Amino acid sequence: MNARPRIGLIGVGRIGQVHLRTVLAHPELAELAILVDANSTALSAAQATYRLSNVSTDVGALFDDPAIDAVIIASSTDTHAQYITEAARAGKSAMTEKPIALDIETTDAALAAVERAGTSLQVGFQRRFDIPYAAARKQIEDGRLGRIEMIRDAMRDPSAPPASYLQVSGGLFRDMTIHNLDCVRWLRGETPVEIYAVGSALTSPEVEMAGDIDTSVIVMTFADGSLATIENSRRSGFGYDVRTEVFGSEGALMIGDHRQVHLRAYNGDGVHEDHQYFFLDRFARAYELEVMHFLESVANDTEPAVTGHDGRVALHLAFAAEQSRRTGLPVRLDPATGQLLAPEGATARE
Amino acid sequence: MNARPRIGLIGVGRIGQVHLRTVLAHPELAELAILVDANSTALSAAQATYRLSNVSTDVGALFDDPAIDAVIIASSTDTHAQYITEAARAGKSAMTEKPIALDIETTDAALAAVERAGTSLQVGFQRRFDIPYAAARKQIEDGRLGRIEMIRDAMRDPSAPPASYLQVSGGLFRDMTIHNLDCVRWLRGETPVEIYAVGSALTSPEVEMAGDIDTSVIVMTFADGSLATIENSRRSGFGYDVRTEVFGSEGALMIGDHRQVHLRAYNGDGVHEDHQYFFLDRFARAYELEVMHFLESVANDTEPAVTGHDGRVALHLAFAAEQSRRTGLPVRLDPATGQLLAPEGATARE
Amino acid sequence: MNARPRIGLIGVGRIGQVHLRTVLAHPELAELAILVDANSTALSAAQATYRLSNVSTDVGALFDDPAIDAVIIASSTDTHAQYITEAARAGKSAMTEKPIALDIETTDAALAAVERAGTSLQVGFQRRFDIPYAAARKQIEDGRLGRIEMIRDAMRDPSAPPASYLQVSGGLFRDMTIHNLDCVRWLRGETPVEIYAVGSALTSPEVEMAGDIDTSVIVMTFADGSLATIENSRRSGFGYDVRTEVFGSEGALMIGDHRQVHLRAYNGDGVHEDHQYFFLDRFARAYELEVMHFLESVANDTEPAVTGHDGRVALHLAFAAEQSRRTGLPVRLDPATGQLLAPEGATARE
Amino acid sequence: MNARPRIGLIGVGRIGQVHLRTVLAHPELAELAILVDANSTALSAAQATYRLSNVSTDVGALFDDPAIDAVIIASSTDTHAQYITEAARAGKSAMTEKPIALDIETTDAALAAVERAGTSLQVGFQRRFDIPYAAARKQIEDGRLGRIEMIRDAMRDPSAPPASYLQVSGGLFRDMTIHNLDCVRWLRGETPVEIYAVGSALTSPEVEMAGDIDTSVIVMTFADGSLATIENSRRSGFGYDVRTEVFGSEGALMIGDHRQVHLRAYNGDGVHEDHQYFFLDRFARAYELEVMHFLESVANDTEPAVTGHDGRVALHLAFAAEQSRRTGLPVRLDPATGQLLAPEGATARE
Repeated sequence: MNARPRIGLIGVGRIGQVHLRTVLAHPELAELAILVDANSTALSAAQATYRLSNVSTDVGALFDDPAIDAVIIASSTDTHAQYITEAARAGKSAMTEKPIALDIETTDAALAAVERAGTSLQVGFQRRFDIPYAAARKQIEDGRLGRIEMIRDAMRDPSAPPASYLQVSGGLFRDMTIHNLDCVRWLRGETPVEIYAVGSALTSPEVEMAGDIDTSVIVMTFADGSLATIENSRRSGFGYDVRTEVFGSEGALMIGDHRQVHLRAYNGDGVHEDHQYFFLDRFARAYELEVMHFLESVANDTEPAVTGHDGRVALHLAFAAEQSRRTGLPVRLDPATGQLLAPEGATARE
Repeated sequence: MNARPRIGLIGVGRIGQVHLRTVLAHPELAELAILVDANSTALSAAQATYRLSNVSTDVGALFDDPAIDAVIIASSTDTHAQYITEAARAGKSAMTEKPIALDIETTDAALAAVERAGTSLQVGFQRRFDIPYAAARKQIEDGRLGRIEMIRDAMRDPSAPPASYLQVSGGLFRDMTIHNLDCVRWLRGETPVEIYAVGSALTSPEVEMAGDIDTSVIVMTFADGSLATIENSRRSGFGYDVRTEVFGSEGALMIGDHRQVHLRAYNGDGVHEDHQYFFLDRFARAYELEVMHFLESVANDTEPAVTGHDGRVALHLAFAAEQSRRTGLPVRLDPATGQLLAPEGATARE
Repeated sequence: MNARPRIGLIGVGRIGQVHLRTVLAHPELAELAILVDANSTALSAAQATYRLSNVSTDVGALFDDPAIDAVIIASSTDTHAQYITEAARAGKSAMTEKPIALDIETTDAALAAVERAGTSLQVGFQRRFDIPYAAARKQIEDGRLGRIEMIRDAMRDPSAPPASYLQVSGGLFRDMTIHNLDCVRWLRGETPVEIYAVGSALTSPEVEMAGDIDTSVIVMTFADGSLATIENSRRSGFGYDVRTEVFGSEGALMIGDHRQVHLRAYNGDGVHEDHQYFFLDRFARAYELEVMHFLESVANDTEPAVTGHDGRVALHLAFAAEQSRRTGLPVRLDPATGQLLAPEGATARE
Repeated sequence: MNARPRIGLIGVGRIGQVHLRTVLAHPELAELAILVDANSTALSAAQATYRLSNVSTDVGALFDDPAIDAVIIASSTDTHAQYITEAARAGKSAMTEKPIALDIETTDAALAAVERAGTSLQVGFQRRFDIPYAAARKQIEDGRLGRIEMIRDAMRDPSAPPASYLQVSGGLFRDMTIHNLDCVRWLRGETPVEIYAVGSALTSPEVEMAGDIDTSVIVMTFADGSLATIENSRRSGFGYDVRTEVFGSEGALMIGDHRQVHLRAYNGDGVHEDHQYFFLDRFARAYELEVMHFLESVANDTEPAVTGHDGRVALHLAFAAEQSRRTGLPVRLDPATGQLLAPEGATARE
């Protein structure tokens, strides 16, 4: 392969610009061949800011150019599957923001296109590239915790997204929890066999009206009896909260921190630290490493560390969690795929 | 009442001696009238160590003495209910180590005796007297967290108890989790309406052979949709782990710490701190404050802060958790008592 | 010796009552024979509170009683030397609050009396019994830090004492810094050969009018070139601050913590913890262990861990620091005694 | 000025590449016009890695090109003053790594050239751009600590540099402490009037043979009596240690942290965290913000936040510290310049 791949980037929104900056900052890894966005105003602004020579509002200019090796898809969720499919057809590797799609059928179709083309696809679970998470995963793999017996994974956003976002988000589990579902699966090295979920709409009437929830707990059981919990909230009341605890027979790991900066203030009221407020700050380095990993996997023609399969299993788990929440009953899963087993599985424990 | 109550103490085991020392260290609060233990060797040793004038192997010497105002019961679990009943009949207030009994019937009978006698009974949930926990409860009561939306309560022992203990313990939920069940109820100010429990025997074959579990997760749902989780393990692999997180609409609290001493060591391997290993160290001050509270409630003729009712509700919750674990299904509860509702309640959510 | 020494305690002020409670809580170690205080009102109150059978306003009742083995001196500073001397003459071991006296002559006379009598004397540097400090000392002694190269010792009070106290305190170095001077010497296992001190009156005009300082830095050099600093302030603006850092060739130790309780609060303003405010809270356990050590040393007829010699060296160091501060020049010391060498020593370095 | 300055960068060593990457990652701020390094091998490697179109081994190609607006000097210390002077003569703004030079005369000559040319010069004290330090400075400026009474600034390297480096370093104070001298001055907003320094060679015989020290304490007194200490070590025995504490009348700030990643490991030995080991990791973001600040100051034609004057004052303070260390006496300074006052100043305090 081209030792220095030529990259087409789709989308100049918030996360698109994060990825754009990473590509520009690493000329040793790749070259930006084209930036595409349907919004010509945003595109012109980005062209001026980043002094880009080649931009287009037409995604065809990217997919039709045989000199482009790979695509980074940072456009809106509803376009991901289509661009994945087009990239595959054009023989280009792709990295896409999560999710591939909000439904299984579209996801399966896109992954089938990738498989047929024999191209690679990386899915944007950026937490896997976060340095503390990656170090934890390494310790688990190296057996330093012994057998993993319990994982507790918590994620809370500082404040709820606007109602308009909630309506297209796919709901808490597919939009937010999906990061945790992937993370637990990845840390654990295995997919659960049972899942139980409860959730409530506590932060605002809009959430309930949208048929969604904003506060949830998920319990997962693995084949060997080990357990995991996921806690989520759309609005923490204090800041961005991403922490994971892994308990093994030989010890435990605590991942994450609350602090915005390494500064403590002491006064007559006590000791004060600023909390972390924004996921882009928390995961700035992870987003950079994620894109660098993709660029290297394209250059070296290797399989990326987070695949379409990972995206699909996480989506199945999110659906299973939703099924449990709606029925009030735990559901059984196929650990190979994360898919729901026939409902009679649910009551078979005793 | 006697402004300086005369106390009879039953039991010179580990926790009995902790309570004995508290009584001796607070002559302004109470006077030790008699120490009772059926084991004459242990009793003589304690008499010599603490220079006691009045000891007996006969519990009747305590209950028959009208000059004794109150009893602290620190004998083995199977004697608690009997001594609670005898104390009530003799018109003496009592403080008992948890649990009142391992079954509901015995518990109910002992509490009925207390109610008939109009005496008071304090149950040994010492965590309520721990300074950080009590400060957290105060902040919650004062509304500083807004509406409580989620609680996460974790407790792990450093290492599993001997098999002999497991057989008489009543199982994980009644022996260990009962502390968390009371703690969540107390912090939340309410009893849940639904409980779901999973658990496994991961630490040793003995646990499984005893029909017990050593690793568990409980999820509780309250009437308003707020949630709570409890994590337990009989063996952490690292030390004693007692931490609770409370999330509200206006903020959160994190209770607990890992450190044994306020000392960090830095060397070529990194930064090291000693973990906490023993519950008596962690809760030393709480045990002292618990007994002081009892002595003061006797002197002032006031209701203690943790009553027999609290003990009974926690026991009901432990049974409900066990029922959920055995059936694999969530169970519905009466929030007034913590008792299981009819099983059809379990599937009524949608 | 009497396996269970009979103790006379002088002083029912704040620290006197702390020690009284320790003696009463440890009947296995000692028996309180008499409590003495010249203030009959305070004495009666203490007698009633602690249900004491034997109290006196006359210190002679203590020193003249041959059945009393040892004395704990918790009276005002100006009486320490006299009571140490009387205890020695009566053949009784003594523990005294620091300082022995504010001047060297009186200190020497009291120590001479102890030496003549062959009794033992423990001086109240309670920090040596603090669990983190003692653990640090142990690691240093065991060589786990390699060669000690630098120590940083900081102590700040939450708020300045009243002007009336300042006038009889002996000044910052003899009143407050003396704890740090002893602590550094003890951790380091050696007395410095040079000391340099600067200080200012920054917190209030009263301090300056009293000819005293409230803010100071001391630098000490040891014979092998290793260094130590001491920081003091009479008023921190935030709470009680006692922290020490020890740097060796193989690693470092950080001793101390800021937190009042193990509780963190998170809200929209960030993360908050309560600071420690009061030295009696911080050192509650150290005060108890200090007295227990004294009781055990009396029972076992062993030398206590902190002797009159330690008290005298620390006082010499405080005088040397004051000399440096007043002249603006470093001063040279005799490391055997902490005494100032002839002034020409000060300029001899190059 | 050119809204998007054209930058010439001198030096492709470690820090040169850090700055190069920052320029390339911010096309919205500046354009890299030329990269210069006398070492043609290193230059070719950099050209290939970063896909650069214009490189040269001749620094004249940079200074003679009128289309270049500004220079970043990241070459060896002995070339800084010359390149600063040449940049000034060519009318180009410059940013230089610290120090300007190791002696005052060369420093003065370079600064005089800058002043004559009316160009700007930024000196590489990157700590000023570190987020926690900058936040602390802001709180101090805003008066949230009240009057500043004491600062403690500590810096320790993980391990001593090679002997070859020591010989050209200028010694501990000019090479390492100079960062702390600038930092304290900046945080305090004022230059001290007196300085006292002690130091020793404890880590290796080479240091002593080089006439240098590796372990030092500096005490500074400001005009209002407030104090500051600086602790340095060439080899910590554990990692990279950069922490600063600022104490004011209304509270205190603690800046810095030890942790490499936000991951704690718990096992039977206790709790473990990885220490920070490398200054480029600790200050990665500060180096980036420093260069971005320079690029913006060039674009906007504004004075940079760290000037040649700051570099000169810090150098004067380093010389004064050395003078104190060699004589064993505190020295008096002119707070406008940091220069030593006549020696008789040293003994004038009482």
